[in-house]
Amino acid sequence: MKREEALSLVKEQITEHRYVHTLGVVDTSILLAERYGADTKKAELAAIFHDYAKFRPKEEMAAIIKQQNMDPRLLAFHSELWHAPVGAYLVQKEAGIEDEEVLNAIRYHTSGRIGMTLLEKVVYVADYIEPGRHFPGVEEVRELAKKDLDAALIQALKNTIQFLMKKNQPVYPDTFHTYNDLTMKKEEAN
Amino acid sequence: MKREEALSLVKEQITEHRYVHTLGVVDTSILLAERYGADTKKAELAAIFHDYAKFRPKEEMAAIIKQQNMDPRLLAFHSELWHAPVGAYLVQKEAGIEDEEVLNAIRYHTSGRIGMTLLEKVVYVADYIEPGRHFPGVEEVRELAKKDLDAALIQALKNTIQFLMKKNQPVYPDTFHTYNDLTMKKEEAN
Repeated sequence: MKREEALSLVKEQITEHRYVHTLGVVDTSILLAERYGADTKKAELAAIFHDYAKFRPKEEMAAIIKQQNMDPRLLAFHSELWHAPVGAYLVQKEAGIEDEEVLNAIRYHTSGRIGMTLLEKVVYVADYIEPGRHFPGVEEVRELAKKDLDAALIQALKNTIQFLMKKNQPVYPDTFHTYNDLTMKKEEAN
Repeated sequence: MKREEALSLVKEQITEHRYVHTLGVVDTSILLAERYGADTKKAELAAIFHDYAKFRPKEEMAAIIKQQNMDPRLLAFHSELWHAPVGAYLVQKEAGIEDEEVLNAIRYHTSGRIGMTLLEKVVYVADYIEPGRHFPGVEEVRELAKKDLDAALIQALKNTIQFLMKKNQPVYPDTFHTYNDLTMKKEEAN
């Protein structure tokens, strides 16, 4: 699918503010894909669609999670997590995207997962550091992303876990397992 | 088993410094058991034996974890975790303690687990806050333990997860699941 067609499909689904964020994620994903050797076209497409389901009603997302036999634990965690797997499903169904790598980059852009692919890491980190993001800790991740994508991802996961713990909120297990997976691989590599 | 007999068995196994810590955990466990309505005798016994295996050689602990079919993931995580389940096993085998509640309080005093019993919480928190403990964050947990054992436990788990993340170390999944379990129950209760 062409960039402009994809962007116009997404623009109908999300707010202007979120669309500006999406454009930031697209630029950053292409840049990170170039830097770390991921497929730039796939990175661009996944980034364009990553928040496709962001503004779907909770009820619709919950129904899709149940109907499509997605991880039922999702429903016990914050609904902020739902738009990623639901988005992957809807992007395939409604926009006709069939590339499983692209769909997985959408699917895991909020939770992460054990064994993330390079493309998934690119979109996850791009979503975290795109130029429109301003929150404590983002600059450190931006700096790390210039030299070490995994280190940037680990720091983003740590910030996320820390942020949730400060609010006494539960942390979706996949986020935590992703942190463990990456830190253990880093330990082995060192 | 009488207190003095138990203490003398433990004293042979651990350093003087760790024995002083153990006496602190014993006093604090009895105090918390009284405060929250746990069995003080079981709390005392579990506290006395909680670090029984602390100074066993790593090789011996690893061998026991394998032979006794304990969670094999333990071996991929920090050996600091091993003395708790190995201790429960050795306290039964060598000291003849058969009370499963006491053994579980020893078994889970470092990792926690989903669905911790009151006795397990008492020993976990006592181990964290006994008067000999001096580290950042301990005072907050001490204060919480005066009014809300679960809140104290959640804070201790958060501190532990945070401490490990600062060092880029993996976090044993049960510790993390315990945090989620308790925060979700707190959310439901509120």
